[in-house]
Formats: sequence, C-alpha cells, structure tokens
Amino acid sequence: MEITRKEFMDLGGKAMLGATIAPSFFNFLDAPRGFIEDILASPRIKKIHQYIEDHKTEHIAKIQSDLRQPSVSSWNMGITEMAERMKDSFKQLGCKEAELVKTDGLSGVWAWYDAGAKKTISHYMMYDTQPYNEKEWSSPPLAANLVKMDPFAQVLIARGAINDKGPNRAFLNACEAIIALEGKLPLNIMFTCDGEEEQGSPHFHQVLAPYHDRLKMCHAHLGAGPSQNREGFINMSLGNKGIAYVELECHGKTWGRGPQRMPIHSSRKAILDSPVWRLVKALSSMVDEAGNKILIDGYYDAIVPPTEEEEMLVNTLIAKFGDKLFASERENVKVWAHDWPSAEAIRHLMFDTSLNIDGIWAGYTGPGSATILPEKAAVKMDSRLIPNQVIDEQIKLIRQHLDKHGFSDISMTKLGGGDEWSRTSVKAPVVQAVLSVYKHYGIEPAIWPRAAGSSPQAQYTRPPLNLPACEGGLGHGGRAHAVDEYLVIDGNERVAGLVKMEQSIVDILYAYANWPE
Amino acid sequence: MEITRKEFMDLGGKAMLGATIAPSFFNFLDAPRGFIEDILASPRIKKIHQYIEDHKTEHIAKIQSDLRQPSVSSWNMGITEMAERMKDSFKQLGCKEAELVKTDGLSGVWAWYDAGAKKTISHYMMYDTQPYNEKEWSSPPLAANLVKMDPFAQVLIARGAINDKGPNRAFLNACEAIIALEGKLPLNIMFTCDGEEEQGSPHFHQVLAPYHDRLKMCHAHLGAGPSQNREGFINMSLGNKGIAYVELECHGKTWGRGPQRMPIHSSRKAILDSPVWRLVKALSSMVDEAGNKILIDGYYDAIVPPTEEEEMLVNTLIAKFGDKLFASERENVKVWAHDWPSAEAIRHLMFDTSLNIDGIWAGYTGPGSATILPEKAAVKMDSRLIPNQVIDEQIKLIRQHLDKHGFSDISMTKLGGGDEWSRTSVKAPVVQAVLSVYKHYGIEPAIWPRAAGSSPQAQYTRPPLNLPACEGGLGHGGRAHAVDEYLVIDGNERVAGLVKMEQSIVDILYAYANWPE
Repeated sequence: MEITRKEFMDLGGKAMLGATIAPSFFNFLDAPRGFIEDILASPRIKKIHQYIEDHKTEHIAKIQSDLRQPSVSSWNMGITEMAERMKDSFKQLGCKEAELVKTDGLSGVWAWYDAGAKKTISHYMMYDTQPYNEKEWSSPPLAANLVKMDPFAQVLIARGAINDKGPNRAFLNACEAIIALEGKLPLNIMFTCDGEEEQGSPHFHQVLAPYHDRLKMCHAHLGAGPSQNREGFINMSLGNKGIAYVELECHGKTWGRGPQRMPIHSSRKAILDSPVWRLVKALSSMVDEAGNKILIDGYYDAIVPPTEEEEMLVNTLIAKFGDKLFASERENVKVWAHDWPSAEAIRHLMFDTSLNIDGIWAGYTGPGSATILPEKAAVKMDSRLIPNQVIDEQIKLIRQHLDKHGFSDISMTKLGGGDEWSRTSVKAPVVQAVLSVYKHYGIEPAIWPRAAGSSPQAQYTRPPLNLPACEGGLGHGGRAHAVDEYLVIDGNERVAGLVKMEQSIVDILYAYANWPE
Repeated sequence: MEITRKEFMDLGGKAMLGATIAPSFFNFLDAPRGFIEDILASPRIKKIHQYIEDHKTEHIAKIQSDLRQPSVSSWNMGITEMAERMKDSFKQLGCKEAELVKTDGLSGVWAWYDAGAKKTISHYMMYDTQPYNEKEWSSPPLAANLVKMDPFAQVLIARGAINDKGPNRAFLNACEAIIALEGKLPLNIMFTCDGEEEQGSPHFHQVLAPYHDRLKMCHAHLGAGPSQNREGFINMSLGNKGIAYVELECHGKTWGRGPQRMPIHSSRKAILDSPVWRLVKALSSMVDEAGNKILIDGYYDAIVPPTEEEEMLVNTLIAKFGDKLFASERENVKVWAHDWPSAEAIRHLMFDTSLNIDGIWAGYTGPGSATILPEKAAVKMDSRLIPNQVIDEQIKLIRQHLDKHGFSDISMTKLGGGDEWSRTSVKAPVVQAVLSVYKHYGIEPAIWPRAAGSSPQAQYTRPPLNLPACEGGLGHGGRAHAVDEYLVIDGNERVAGLVKMEQSIVDILYAYANWPE
C-alpha cells in the first residue's frame, strides 16, 4: 500500500527536490480523475447543495440543540442523554439498526445505515467533550450562541462546537439532505460512537468488539467534516500518534513516611519527610534539565525509522509550507524546543515521542499562604507514541523507572488507554477520493503522515479490522480543549461556513462511493 | 539573662544526668514563692473564679459570636468587621484608647487599658484565621456549634476556635470578670492585634511602629490562654522559629519558551518546552534525594549553635518525656525523617531550619484526564528559621540559587514576612510567674527553647522593644489550620474546660502583677 521513493519521484518528488518548481500535494493523487469532476458538477449534486443552503437555519438549530446537551465524560455529565440523542438521530436518518452499546464505562452507540449500495464505509463519532470552567468563557459553553468573531462573519461558541459534536451533526445534516432528494445515501454506513474519547477511549474496544465481523466488511473508515484551519488551510493527516495517559500519586500512607492521613503543620518539615518533595524528585528523574529528553530506560527502544512515504510527505511539507504550517499557533508559541526552526519542528512533531505533565497538584493552592506539609501529591502525565511504541509497554517502562529509582510506593493509574498510533497510505482509494474533492475545490492540502494528537482510529486501521482511513472536508472551528471553542457558521473568502462544509461532506461521500477499488 | 550550665546543675540538672531521680522543669523555677500561693488561694481570687463559673453560658455565647464573624485574611473576608469587633470589645473592657491601625494591608488594632498599676504588659491578639473548605467539616466552620467530641464532654467547632479567636475572647472574658469584682485589672495592658497573622504578618510592623515608644515601657509581653494538649500536657515555648514564605511561578511568557499565553494541546510537547517540567527541575535542584537536606548555597551559614540554656532545656525534654512529646501526632506520623527516634527528632525540630512545599499546582487537576501543556506552574514554599537566620537573607539565597541554576525567569513573590525567630530566657520574671501558676495547679510543663511554628513575637522580643515574652494557661483546643478546629468547653479529668481556662488567665495576670522584678 505504501508509495515507494521511485513512485514519489515519478509523482513530482523530483520537482520538489529541484530548485525552481514547487511540488504540489496533488502530485500524490494517482491520476487525473475526470469522472469525479463530472459527478461533483452534476445537477443531482447541485440540487443537494441547494437543499443544504435552503435549510441552513434548520441545520444550525439542530447543531445548537446537540451542543446545549452537556456531555462531559470526565465529570460523567450528560453522557447517557447524549447517547440517546445520537441513537434517535440515527433512527431519524433511517438506520436499520441503532442502539446503545454497554461497556465497563460509559455507553457507546452503534448504528447501521443500509443503502443497498456496493460500498460500505465505517464512520466514527465521539460525543463526549472536554470539561470547562464556565467563568472563563465569553459566551457560556452550553449556550451555543451565535456571535461575531473576527475574522469570521458568524461563529457558534460552545464546548464541543468543533470537537466533535458540531461536526457530527453537520455530517448528519448532509446525509439528511441527500436522503431528502435521492431517497438514500450513495453508500452504506456503519456508525460507531464513543462517549469517552476525551478520557482516551478506555472502553471503546468494547463498543467495537461485538461488531468486528460486520465492520470488517467495510471498504474504508471515512470521516467528513470541517478540516480547514483559521486561514482556510487544510492539514490532512493519514493517521495519528498514540497516547499513554497516567496519574501518579505519592502518598505518605503508601510510602510509610511523611504525614500519613492528613496535612500536618508545615513547622514539622524539619523532622518529617514530604511526599511533595518525593514526587518532585521522582518526576525530575524522568527527564533531562530542559524537560524534553526522556531519561526512562528503553523509552525510545520501540521506535522504528519513518517509512519512505512518511519521509517524502514530511519533506514536501517542509519544502512547500515551512513556517506557515504553524501560523495559527504563533500567538501562543514564540520558539519551539531546542530553538528548532519550523522545518525541524515538523519533523520532530511527526517522528518523536514525548512526555508531558498535564497537571500537578498538592497542598494549598489558593490565594495567599497556608502553612501545611501535604500528605500527598499527584501528577497527570501523557506520552504521545509513534510506530512501534505500544501504550502498555511504555507505561510498563515508566513503572520500571519508578521502581528502579526507589519510588515503588508511588502509585500509577492508567487513564484512558485505547488510542494506539494509526496510519494509512496516501495511495489508499479513500485518501485519493478525499484528495480529489479538494482538487475539485482548488484547495491544496498539506498531507501529514499523522496527526500529532490521538484518536481511536487505530481500532479501525490496525488488526483485526485493518481498514484504510481518511477524513476531510471544508469548514473550520477552533479552540478545542480551550475556552471559547467555536464552529464557523459564516466564514470569509478563505474559510468555508456551515453550508459549504455540509456540501463538501456530500461531495466526499459521492466521490468515494464512485471511486473504483 | 540566660541560665548557665552551672546554674542548671544547681537547679536539678545534675539529678537529670543521674540515673535514679527524674528532673522536673520546676527546677527551672528560681525559688519557692510562697507569696504567690497565698495570692492564688486568697478569697479575692476565689471570688473571681466563682464569678467566671457563674457566667459560663454568657462567656460561651461571646466566643460563639466572635467565631460566627468570618475573618479569613487570605480571602480578605470579614477582616474589617472583625477589627471593628475587637475595637468595640476593648472599649467595653474600659480601655482608654481603642482604635483601628491602618497598614499597607489589612488593618490592625491598638488598645490601651490603664489600671494605674505599676506594671504594664504587652498583650497580642491575632484575629484572622486560615481559610477552610466547608464541605470537609463535620460541623460548619462558621456555625460555632457545641458538640460532643471524644474524649471531651463538649467542644466548640469553628475556624478560629483555638487559633486564636476563641482564646482571645476567653482572655477578655477573664479580664471582664476581674473588673466586675475588683473595679480594675491588676496591671496595665497594651493590646496590639494583627489581622494578617495567617499571611505571615506582612504589615504588623506598621501596626506596632506608631506605638513603639509606649510599648517600650512594658515590663513584659504576656499571653494567657489554653496551652494544654489533648492529654492535658503543657508544652511551654520560650520563643519561636522564624518563617520565610515565598511563591514561585514559572510562566512561558517570562521564560520566553513553551506556551506563552494559555495552555496548548499536549500533543505539542514533542516540540515545545514545558514550564511545568522547568519548575520541577528548579525545585528538584533545591533539596537532596530525600527532600530534607537543603542544597541552596549558604542556606545553613547563618545558623549559630544552640545556647547552653537551650541545650539544657532540650536535654531535659528528652530525658523526661521522650516519645510522649509527640504522642498527639502519632495518628498522622509513623516515622520521623531519617528514622530519627523522638529524642533526636526533638533536637532537630528545635535546632534545624527546613524547606517545605506547602502547595504546588499547574494545568488540569480535576477528575479524569485533560490533555494540555500548561503555560505556567507555581509553588508555595516555606522555610522555618532559627538563630541567626534572617528572613530576607534566606529569601535572597533562594533567589541566588534560582539565578545560578539558570532559572532567573522564575518569579518569586514573598508572602507574609514579619515573623523572625524569637527567644526569651527561662529566667525572665514573666516566665517564672507563669511557671509558678503551673506549679500551683500541680501541672509540670515541658519547656521548649522555642516553638517549631512561627508568630510575630519577635516584634516584641527583639529590637527595638526587647521585651521578655511568655504565654501559658490551662485549657485546650486543636486542629489549628485543619478541618474541625475546636476549643474544649467542658474537658475531662486531665484537660481543663473553659471555666478553668479563664480562671488560669486570672491567676497568671495576678501572679505576674505581683512578681518582684
């Protein structure tokens, strides 16, 4: 499935390596596909596009309705209600099957839309969101208000607006438009939905397992939704990194030293050990002075060199876009680690693992001072994984490091745990179909070998399912995981609004439905 | 003023060093003072004691009333209201002067009770409290409910019950009883009150400064209130340690690396520096692996050896009480640092400095997981100081350490800052008077060269005032700084309740008023 260096050269890689002609990611498109242009320009598709435009108000209202239903997995808030909503949506769409799937954690959802078509796709939705601190938001995270937000004419502000409840509903809106005019979708869809994605999808394998035999029959795993960034630019990822997420706690009771049951007056520090200092020491032993090189024995051992195709994609990214790839992050980032130029940073973002502290806490953290020696201290950490790192193996190495350095009493709890790394070749028909839609719109994407973030995609792309996977589409949203998360409803000359977003979803479904395998 | 080794031997030190006769802390009492016994057993004092017993219900109500007025300095909650209350109480007592004293922070209070007596004492009150998390309390921290709490017949649960609003009001109750029967107190009192003690008294010097010339005229700084522990035992301290309290923050913006304005998605860790790791590294550099030895250059340099008197007191503590000194902490402490036996721990508690983490925080600290690379991390630290460490000098050493290790961007804010170490000799008349009252009750205290905690006492005992200082009395309260803080109202056979507490305050005032200087 992977493109070879020779093929890359044939497709334009040579031009990239030369000095005068810029390569294009469209060179990764196998061949001109005139028939796709014919389909996308056909009156049938135009009619569906018009239908979407005519039903814009209704489509917005449906998105708002979903966003006003909270579904914060880390607070276990509204998850069941949201799962029921998803089920009802699938039923309304005309799915033959639509049901909640019990797991050891929060419920998932399964649905099956049978168009009687030759081709079947697997489509994933996550319906939980990150938590939020309402006080910090300019518009309440559950209000789903429409507001003006420069440089966009109108956005919808809500937790889940872009990650992923807004896009989920936009996908269903597009499907409903097709069915309203065509009677059915151009392909069959197996929907599988996770309510614990923000927890690292700890039980999503239990959602998929009962349907493995049926999911195997899919031709591809396809996502369609807003993929433009703030500038209208599209980053297309052919996979993602894995993530290991753990919480460590140092407690006096477990340690057998320091305060055993509760904080003690800080004057006792002169004669009493501190679990906080101990956690600081344990953490400090894990990384170098700069906090970037991981000093845990064997942590890098499982990593294999990038494939030729990955190297080609990254080379193309660097040659063609350079600094622009990180443009949207410049307000929050001054310099990359090691003062890497963006070109170097892209390479490391793709090909390096990492160890991050997501949160740390102990004792009194309010205003002013309180004089206590805390009985415990804790930290949340995540590590992003690349081929061939395996979550449980990396966690085992952290445990071994702690034990080896005398910290065997420090407890470690695995949080999440379903998201291994994933990758699909650029040559897979499903990728080619999405690329052809971008070409139709004249928007050249940047193709990344993988996203730096994580998703449960590996559960589709790696054994036992082994599906090629891709996602794409026009439209934009931002501030996922942060305050004032938004979805663009009316964009600008570069960024598509909701109507065009839903239209591009229609295009992608038809392009892949008609793509020869 | 200090007792010599020879004097100690004369007073019973020799007996202590022998094997058969246990020494007594009463050996530190200069000579039998029969006249004190006569005074304390006199009908006048007995009448005052009876008056206190008759007014118990009223006295409890007055304490409750003060405790129901919140006064949390770190939240700036209720401080002005409480200051006004203090002022009104002093006026009601008959103080010639009673006024709020403005500072750069929260107001202090000054009051002057002129009995026309020969002797004048300085008396200190703090009227702020630690913060609280109401949810954790068995009885609301502002309700000041009377409840049964084993092994005591009845206690009052409230924030400030023992530290120090309950004892403050008990002192005033005792004074009011004396005045009701005698017309006036046996000595003059200059009251000075701090509303920021729990912040380390950052502005208390501004409360004292305008009254320095008058406070110099005092014969001693005397406190009287509940001094028994849970078992009825009394630890008497002849001073206290100093405290340096700082907050450090590592922020991407100041550092010029990592996220600059807000948390970023944790996938960026592969190419972005982390202020959290940086703070961990900075902290780790300050202490040894065990978290006990301070590795900051020069941190121990200012420390001078204990005086002979201090050594004698500690030797007596160890010989006479040993493990019992820490009995009340055994539910929360299994082993001391370095596995020190209690004898060794007492010595280190008295004669060692310390560096403690009171709180640390960064990023997401709630339930479940959130994947962020925080833009900042912060820590609250305190260091307990002994002769001749000086707060600002020790803080300067921490700053120099950070700078030397390349952490000059890590900001440091001094919190509190008024509490230097303090000490008074056991031979001071004010100490002798308190000791004589204990002897009268047949309760032998343990005399510590200093408390391990801190207080603004140094502002009275060191230049420019140079007053000898002491405090004592019967009664008990506990859980200062913790949940379910309490004051014993009705005790048991070992622990005095409120009535006896107030009676002992009367005794101490009369003993010192009549003590020959």
